Amino acid sequence: MSARVPVTAIDIAEIDSFDHETDVLVLGYGCAGASAALEAVESGADVILLERQSGGGGSSALSGGEMYLGGGTPIQEACGFDDTAEEMEKFLLAALGPDADREKVGLYSRESVAHYQWLVDHGVPFKPSLWDSPTWVPPTDDGLMWMGENAYPFYEIAKPAPRGHRVTSDGFGGKILMAVLSEAVEKSAIAVHSDTTALRLITDNGRVVGVLARHFNETVTYRARRGVVITTGGFADNKEMLAQHAPQLVGLSVNSDGGDDGRGIVMAQAAGAAVKHMSAGQVGISLVPGMMVRGMIVNNVGQRFINEDVYPGLVGQAALFKHNLKVWVILDEQAYEEVPVDERWGVQPHFVAETLEELEREIGMPEGALQNTVGEYNRFAADGEDPYFHKSERWLRPLRSPFAAIDVQRGMSPPELGDNGTDGGGAAVFTIGGLHTTVDGHVLDLGGDAIPGLFAAGRATSGLHSWGYVSGTSLGDGTFFGRRAGIAASR
Amino acid sequence: MSARVPVTAIDIAEIDSFDHETDVLVLGYGCAGASAALEAVESGADVILLERQSGGGGSSALSGGEMYLGGGTPIQEACGFDDTAEEMEKFLLAALGPDADREKVGLYSRESVAHYQWLVDHGVPFKPSLWDSPTWVPPTDDGLMWMGENAYPFYEIAKPAPRGHRVTSDGFGGKILMAVLSEAVEKSAIAVHSDTTALRLITDNGRVVGVLARHFNETVTYRARRGVVITTGGFADNKEMLAQHAPQLVGLSVNSDGGDDGRGIVMAQAAGAAVKHMSAGQVGISLVPGMMVRGMIVNNVGQRFINEDVYPGLVGQAALFKHNLKVWVILDEQAYEEVPVDERWGVQPHFVAETLEELEREIGMPEGALQNTVGEYNRFAADGEDPYFHKSERWLRPLRSPFAAIDVQRGMSPPELGDNGTDGGGAAVFTIGGLHTTVDGHVLDLGGDAIPGLFAAGRATSGLHSWGYVSGTSLGDGTFFGRRAGIAASR
Repeated sequence: MSARVPVTAIDIAEIDSFDHETDVLVLGYGCAGASAALEAVESGADVILLERQSGGGGSSALSGGEMYLGGGTPIQEACGFDDTAEEMEKFLLAALGPDADREKVGLYSRESVAHYQWLVDHGVPFKPSLWDSPTWVPPTDDGLMWMGENAYPFYEIAKPAPRGHRVTSDGFGGKILMAVLSEAVEKSAIAVHSDTTALRLITDNGRVVGVLARHFNETVTYRARRGVVITTGGFADNKEMLAQHAPQLVGLSVNSDGGDDGRGIVMAQAAGAAVKHMSAGQVGISLVPGMMVRGMIVNNVGQRFINEDVYPGLVGQAALFKHNLKVWVILDEQAYEEVPVDERWGVQPHFVAETLEELEREIGMPEGALQNTVGEYNRFAADGEDPYFHKSERWLRPLRSPFAAIDVQRGMSPPELGDNGTDGGGAAVFTIGGLHTTVDGHVLDLGGDAIPGLFAAGRATSGLHSWGYVSGTSLGDGTFFGRRAGIAASR
Repeated sequence: MSARVPVTAIDIAEIDSFDHETDVLVLGYGCAGASAALEAVESGADVILLERQSGGGGSSALSGGEMYLGGGTPIQEACGFDDTAEEMEKFLLAALGPDADREKVGLYSRESVAHYQWLVDHGVPFKPSLWDSPTWVPPTDDGLMWMGENAYPFYEIAKPAPRGHRVTSDGFGGKILMAVLSEAVEKSAIAVHSDTTALRLITDNGRVVGVLARHFNETVTYRARRGVVITTGGFADNKEMLAQHAPQLVGLSVNSDGGDDGRGIVMAQAAGAAVKHMSAGQVGISLVPGMMVRGMIVNNVGQRFINEDVYPGLVGQAALFKHNLKVWVILDEQAYEEVPVDERWGVQPHFVAETLEELEREIGMPEGALQNTVGEYNRFAADGEDPYFHKSERWLRPLRSPFAAIDVQRGMSPPELGDNGTDGGGAAVFTIGGLHTTVDGHVLDLGGDAIPGLFAAGRATSGLHSWGYVSGTSLGDGTFFGRRAGIAASR
């Protein structure tokens, strides 16, 4: 946030004249902003889309490109999976809780097939083939993946079906998604104003009627006759806001385009908006899920703490929030060799040893720590059981010498950390909390009433989530609730 | 929060006339409000103190009565401990972090001896005798206690000295503290308006100039010529706010007088105030520290996770935030017998067994889980070592049959949970986050500027803390920064 520019809303009386006027003004050209603008223009509204960067894309374009969709999409059906909105809803409430937004999750699940169709109609490509192993992003161009639906405890809560729909891509799919949406924007009557940063809201008797922005060194004012839609992203790039609201995320790498400074959130707060779940974060940790699932992940005294076949983002949250990222992947030679080469992302173990005694000494764990943990693991794995954390039998077998360890805190190279990723201590994060909105994108004030003229979607809002997170729910809720906000704002 | 009464600030133009007028208006008669009012009146200001209950005390009166003080107080010196402000500051930054407020912690540490003297001058009793074992509150009337300063890792970070100054009392000391401060208030010219709930701030061109309140069914308006001081406590009693900001605290017992509804925080936010660390909480769990420290605490797969001699509130935070309160105290008969009867608080083990195999079966842990953990513990304890979690040698010895277990989630009776405590799933909590204030109690807006006329202290603010917590820092920062806010507001 440019701390020197006040964030407080300006009264319309202080504005002599507006430089631009439109029906709907959308702030931020990521997936939520593009979706909002498209629906608004398709509803017959005049639309201007502001973007601080020179072109569209935002953090969405740097993401893996997963979209959490289900309830029986054509992709799921083609891959042989039955699914219903009810099972999808049950999974999401469990995976994103506690206090996931029930109304948003319910609507999102019930309308997921229709949303899939909207995306396809706008040119977003999905491929009907399954990647069937835990991963951040498939190393192939497979279009369907598990997000931990088949792992404990989720398979007990909801009938499992893979719901990670990955935009078809050779590598990360976010850039494809944004290329497609941008093409639709370009073909439309939406006016895109790039290099333009929204700084303050303009209000008229409590109603949001416009925005004061900066275009290079120039101040520009926008009048929005029907509504302003904030889709400016989260606040992972704002160290001060992180320290105030999500201190455990400070000092790590960030998954963003560098513009997730929280300004949109604060600007709305200064106009009375409420926020939710500001301490929540997605945590991508530096490990290869295919290696972890064939071995184990342990903390700094050699204890396992989660079933390694769950969605890796949940492992990341546990590793950061419960073990301060002091975690190691322990595996044996057989496990390493079993991971297909294209799924290894070039990662090599940091320690190799003939015995666990030697390995724990090299890592600096208490003498006996790994011997005990691996001993217990092996004792049950021989029977295909894991009474401690319930990893699936598919991934269980006794680990045998020689052993190896990966020190997650040492970090690894991209692409796991995103194109923008750097080695920031073994994890790359973004924020999940934000503005409190209704299912129609209305921004609520501190008393729970909608602020007239103000809408929001994407990571500037607290979306489906409370503290939990699975991939695909950001591009998912960004596009889905971005569309709804665009429709509501154009009324 | 009474959701039906708007929280937005009212413009002074809408107020026909004020029912009351004063220099300084203090909202909330807990320790922070009393301290603010006393300093304001001693500075020569007219002061009105509003309290929603029929009498003063607030949640402060229900607390244990510990005050975190150090740097060489007469009590520390009488008990034979050297201490400095520097060591106190180092401890607090480590125990309350990450992102503890450096400026507040520094000032609080440097002026701690003077603050002790102010308390004594106002009649607060402290006794120069040490309770030398981990506890929530001494079962005796001892006046000095450890808050984990002598436990790992803190003894490596700062030279240990006990700094828990417990107001002399037969039982909880909070009621004594508030009785003494209330007596000082009564002797002063402060006007106390009880049964009066502040609902909205009144502003004049961005400056806070008064409050709209409710006295039974009547609306009452107050004009504050110099400043309004918010000391209305946290939001542990407001389930909606908990779910939005601290979802992990939902559904537990609450340490409060029932009035910690967050209204003061929201009222200030609606006038532009910023908040910090809203997800943080103190967690008092249902166990006897004297039993835990002689045995161990484990999670639901029998793993230890902390050195049991640390301040029990840090154990509580780890138990709730990292293990969802699914934790058990494991001890043997000798450990139980060694705990003095008056320190047992009537707690009996829920499970007793001759063997660990039997005990883990009864609890429902994986077969071998406790055998392994206790085996490792005993192997090192025989040599007075704990390479896993570094519990002090003083508390280490091999545990021997017969064994027992306490299921923390089953809860226990008061007094551990506070006078207001009920069995809410094994923990009683309160919130630590709140309004963003300066060391002088000025409430900051979202751009970091002080809101003219608005001050705050106590648990309505984010005080010294980030996420960590030790007892004594709430009564401590409430009285200390309450005093400073009262002085600043009276200028």
